[in-house]
Amino acid sequence: MSDASFLSELYDALFPILRSLTGPGVTRTLAILGGHMPLEVETVASGAKVFDWTVPPSWHCRSAVLTGPDGTVLADLATSTLSVVNYAEPVDVMLDLADLQPHLHSLPALPDAVPYVTSYYKRAWGFCLPHGVRATLPPGRYHARIDSEFRTDSGVQVAQAVLPGESDAEILLSSYVCHPSMANNELSGPLTLVGLYRRLVAWPRRRFTYRFVLHPETIGSLCFLANHAEHVRTHMTAGMVLNCTGGTGEGLSYKLSRRGDGLLDRLMTHLAALPDQGRADTGLPVTLRPFDPTGGSDERQYNAPGFNFPFGQLARTPPGTYQAYHTSLDTKEYMGIDKVVGTIDALERVLSLAEIGAHYVNLAPYGEPQLGRRDLYPNTNSRANEGASADHVTDGRTFLNRILYALNYADGRHDGLEIAAKCGAPIGEMRAVVETLERNELLRFVGGPSSANPPPQ
Amino acid sequence: MSDASFLSELYDALFPILRSLTGPGVTRTLAILGGHMPLEVETVASGAKVFDWTVPPSWHCRSAVLTGPDGTVLADLATSTLSVVNYAEPVDVMLDLADLQPHLHSLPALPDAVPYVTSYYKRAWGFCLPHGVRATLPPGRYHARIDSEFRTDSGVQVAQAVLPGESDAEILLSSYVCHPSMANNELSGPLTLVGLYRRLVAWPRRRFTYRFVLHPETIGSLCFLANHAEHVRTHMTAGMVLNCTGGTGEGLSYKLSRRGDGLLDRLMTHLAALPDQGRADTGLPVTLRPFDPTGGSDERQYNAPGFNFPFGQLARTPPGTYQAYHTSLDTKEYMGIDKVVGTIDALERVLSLAEIGAHYVNLAPYGEPQLGRRDLYPNTNSRANEGASADHVTDGRTFLNRILYALNYADGRHDGLEIAAKCGAPIGEMRAVVETLERNELLRFVGGPSSANPPPQ
Amino acid sequence: MSDASFLSELYDALFPILRSLTGPGVTRTLAILGGHMPLEVETVASGAKVFDWTVPPSWHCRSAVLTGPDGTVLADLATSTLSVVNYAEPVDVMLDLADLQPHLHSLPALPDAVPYVTSYYKRAWGFCLPHGVRATLPPGRYHARIDSEFRTDSGVQVAQAVLPGESDAEILLSSYVCHPSMANNELSGPLTLVGLYRRLVAWPRRRFTYRFVLHPETIGSLCFLANHAEHVRTHMTAGMVLNCTGGTGEGLSYKLSRRGDGLLDRLMTHLAALPDQGRADTGLPVTLRPFDPTGGSDERQYNAPGFNFPFGQLARTPPGTYQAYHTSLDTKEYMGIDKVVGTIDALERVLSLAEIGAHYVNLAPYGEPQLGRRDLYPNTNSRANEGASADHVTDGRTFLNRILYALNYADGRHDGLEIAAKCGAPIGEMRAVVETLERNELLRFVGGPSSANPPPQ
Repeated sequence: MSDASFLSELYDALFPILRSLTGPGVTRTLAILGGHMPLEVETVASGAKVFDWTVPPSWHCRSAVLTGPDGTVLADLATSTLSVVNYAEPVDVMLDLADLQPHLHSLPALPDAVPYVTSYYKRAWGFCLPHGVRATLPPGRYHARIDSEFRTDSGVQVAQAVLPGESDAEILLSSYVCHPSMANNELSGPLTLVGLYRRLVAWPRRRFTYRFVLHPETIGSLCFLANHAEHVRTHMTAGMVLNCTGGTGEGLSYKLSRRGDGLLDRLMTHLAALPDQGRADTGLPVTLRPFDPTGGSDERQYNAPGFNFPFGQLARTPPGTYQAYHTSLDTKEYMGIDKVVGTIDALERVLSLAEIGAHYVNLAPYGEPQLGRRDLYPNTNSRANEGASADHVTDGRTFLNRILYALNYADGRHDGLEIAAKCGAPIGEMRAVVETLERNELLRFVGGPSSANPPPQ
Repeated sequence: MSDASFLSELYDALFPILRSLTGPGVTRTLAILGGHMPLEVETVASGAKVFDWTVPPSWHCRSAVLTGPDGTVLADLATSTLSVVNYAEPVDVMLDLADLQPHLHSLPALPDAVPYVTSYYKRAWGFCLPHGVRATLPPGRYHARIDSEFRTDSGVQVAQAVLPGESDAEILLSSYVCHPSMANNELSGPLTLVGLYRRLVAWPRRRFTYRFVLHPETIGSLCFLANHAEHVRTHMTAGMVLNCTGGTGEGLSYKLSRRGDGLLDRLMTHLAALPDQGRADTGLPVTLRPFDPTGGSDERQYNAPGFNFPFGQLARTPPGTYQAYHTSLDTKEYMGIDKVVGTIDALERVLSLAEIGAHYVNLAPYGEPQLGRRDLYPNTNSRANEGASADHVTDGRTFLNRILYALNYADGRHDGLEIAAKCGAPIGEMRAVVETLERNELLRFVGGPSSANPPPQ
Repeated sequence: MSDASFLSELYDALFPILRSLTGPGVTRTLAILGGHMPLEVETVASGAKVFDWTVPPSWHCRSAVLTGPDGTVLADLATSTLSVVNYAEPVDVMLDLADLQPHLHSLPALPDAVPYVTSYYKRAWGFCLPHGVRATLPPGRYHARIDSEFRTDSGVQVAQAVLPGESDAEILLSSYVCHPSMANNELSGPLTLVGLYRRLVAWPRRRFTYRFVLHPETIGSLCFLANHAEHVRTHMTAGMVLNCTGGTGEGLSYKLSRRGDGLLDRLMTHLAALPDQGRADTGLPVTLRPFDPTGGSDERQYNAPGFNFPFGQLARTPPGTYQAYHTSLDTKEYMGIDKVVGTIDALERVLSLAEIGAHYVNLAPYGEPQLGRRDLYPNTNSRANEGASADHVTDGRTFLNRILYALNYADGRHDGLEIAAKCGAPIGEMRAVVETLERNELLRFVGGPSSANPPPQ
């Protein structure tokens, strides 16, 4: 089955589910995704303290209907998961339009759209409906009925799958599963994560270990970090949250981490700095967004000052930059399955380049290793050899020079991206150099550093 | 009593005193100043070794008169404290004009001025007089009489007053008390120090502890450092010596410390970089002078390589930049009591900004704190809230964004000035942000770092 | 005897010798050079492991003759040491021209030149001859005879001479002795080394210790580092390999070390940045080459990542930049004894400047030392002294200011070059400042830092 067909079917299975921070929608979503990658789920109990937060009770919403004076159904959870304010408290009340109005949500600028509204941490109830409908509501008595319940027998679910690599240095990829029926934000994220898993599982070798993480936004990443920050601190070389990976955006848009010096920060900066090369290397143009703590997604938690992890955010059409964002207009058509596939294609190439652009150490660092006996250097030293190949392996002096640069700068302080820059070579062209030196046991992949995981000196 | 009247009276009490490195003039000066701030005085004995120096004996000069051949009095300590070379040895001798000349000091370019001359560490005697007078001296026998004495029963006096703050991180403000009757250099300095003390004692809260230090120049700061360098090293966030704070200068002129990265260095640089903002924030334009070890005042000692303290110099009309400098022309009228009051006004605002521009640490650094339950974040998440206020406290999205920046960067490495820059906000506008977060126990003032006093990580 | 005559005679004695990595040619060369500097020779045995390398057996080549079908001698070691491939294995064979061709080396672009060819680590035999001769070889049977032998009773010889200085911080100067009869590369190098030794031994004082090192290229420096890297790491402030120091090049061409922050790196950069000053200070224009691990000489070993020593390369006509390089055209005439003498002149001045541009520490770092009692500061403080000399020693306020800068920045972090820059003074003018402060026991030479040899804080 093609990626596009696979993802389209997966999308259709996930779309109708009423997701929230907690509750049966998340459980079902993770079960479906777990059919395609080996997710392990852990639950942080409602009421638990997580850093400055308290894990909320889980929300179970069976039905929500708003009926007009004449009996017309104006909003119904059964019709759209956006109709009810997410985490709405139960209510069953008849009330006048004037008293109802504070409980209604609509967008005057988008009169046909149902907005997405939440009130996770302050009890409230409400309905969301098109402004076109709201504007014509007649006076009279309305019936607001929400059959919801808050339970404390469950909590926030955090799911992970790990693809081991040759080293235990990790690249962490995450997305979230708390939004009801919307496409670019959020289903594109989990789709991309699954798509990447399917690609990476097929790689003949992985130098990095890859960790895939799924949970509700914000409180979910806080729960993940509460349980695993020390592991992240000591193992993660770089990471990013994937969301809004479809839509009308031209290419990959990467939001830098706070520190800006992680491997993905540096790689995406490298690709963005040379637009033609970036497009050639990944298939899509690459642009950057600066770090900014005032908006965004789970990267805000990873980049808090107590963590300061090199963790970015990857989008194609970033949150808040398109009209359909957080409304019923964010549809499968808007997102585009083909766009998500394009993002997966490009990210697979990004990760493949990250393996080459990471840190390596020279295993024979005292002087130059004797390349001649490995047939990496001309054994006859003669001016007639100038500009010519070494005996067998290399394809010319350029290749030998790159080998010499790689050996000289693979010192634990310069990564593959810096070595490529010193060679004047696109990072992709360094793959053959790295692999030749690995084969000759002259170079060892060390991945890092993260702030707490410096490579050996 | 207005500041101006208070300072004018204080000036008049201090002006006539014959000050020097040591002796009764310094004692009396500190006694008068001690009437307005709780000075504690310590004495470093004559003969004591202080780093590379030896504390000189104290100089007691009862009279000094130079009489001409016809009995005219040409110079008299009773008329002007500048008439005698400061630290002159005793003499009582009749001598010809030719023999007298090497003992006379005048300024041809300023024929009406009596120059200020010292010879602290090499025994000498001499008189200072206007060049107009000196040029018309007739031949004949002159009578030079100086009734002075060097005693070893006293020494160099160092006076301090401390205004405690919420933290023990200190800002150190110093000036000196060794110049006889001159106004801009030096009385403006002690006047400014007393004036600032009176302002800061009235502040409702002080985050920093403020230390006020007075002593003779050079040897006095060396004595202070000999006794207190370790305290300074471990407690002082920043400091400056105040002198020449009146006169014709337009605004605040700050000489950077050698290291250039102290809080006052950075704050004054910030104010100088945005002239209109600097003037708006302090009431006066702010300019910088680079560090230079070849001239200046007590900052030379604090910035010696063995200390390398972040200690600047603040003037309004810097030493050596005005004609009256170190002469009898440096009068109350030249200095201007109103100018000194203006400097005090501006420095009070500078110190108030320093408290906001200092280092703070986020007390909930692992992820974002839950701002919603503190009414600092909208509890209903809806696109209808875009650009709108959080519920109660904030005055809009700008304020919330600044809160998020402050929390994210209050990591012990970025100070308030850097956070303001990241917000694109004048430092003064960060006060409300800082105070809101302090009230919510999310931010704690740590003051530092000095080189030896890094804030907690 | 003039330098020129001395070096010319030494050249003539060294030129005819058949040098190689090992063997009697090196022994004899070191014996001759040891007549002019106290060389101590150590031998690393054939077969020893040296980092990634194995020390080769020593090569003894008694004769090598190639005879044509008509008995004409086409190449003969007795005529030119370049005639035989260096490290050729023994052979005595009659063969057709077609079979001989793979064993012949010539340069079509330089038809009159005999090229220099080696095959140290892969057994091979061959002859080198002018392409003009090779092109006219008739068909027929040729006789190739090489009487060579590989022995394991000896090894690679490393020779050192040390000129002690006041401190044990070292400057290391090296060259190599493995090339047969060629002038600019390589005899100019050992000649320059001996010439410099003769100059430095006559200096009235040396602050640095100078180490002179001679050995075959590459394997020789590896053997030296295998035995002495720890000493180099803890003692060497800077170093360089001298080769190609004659020829048509205009001036000194310095290849920066990998780290680029060594004393010689910084000094040569300083001299190159101010061409007129550089020429005035050294007598020759100074230019820089960037560090590059892909070409060069023994600096490649010192700059390997496991060492990362601040070690450059000094040439006048760098390797590979002139047509005669590695051929019989590289003659005494091309090199020019006068050019080598000019290089020695210039390098002596460079080393003399390095002593002033090195690190010093202020011995009275707590505040300013009392310069007045040392007659380095005016003892009478009067405006009449402005711009005037201090009493005895100094020649004006400029000199005093430089003294104050030197004291303030001699903190173990700033070297003499940085202090000169702060003074706006050419480094040469700082000599009097440094010597005045040394005489007054206010400044102490510490040389360093190398990466492992930081000066005291």
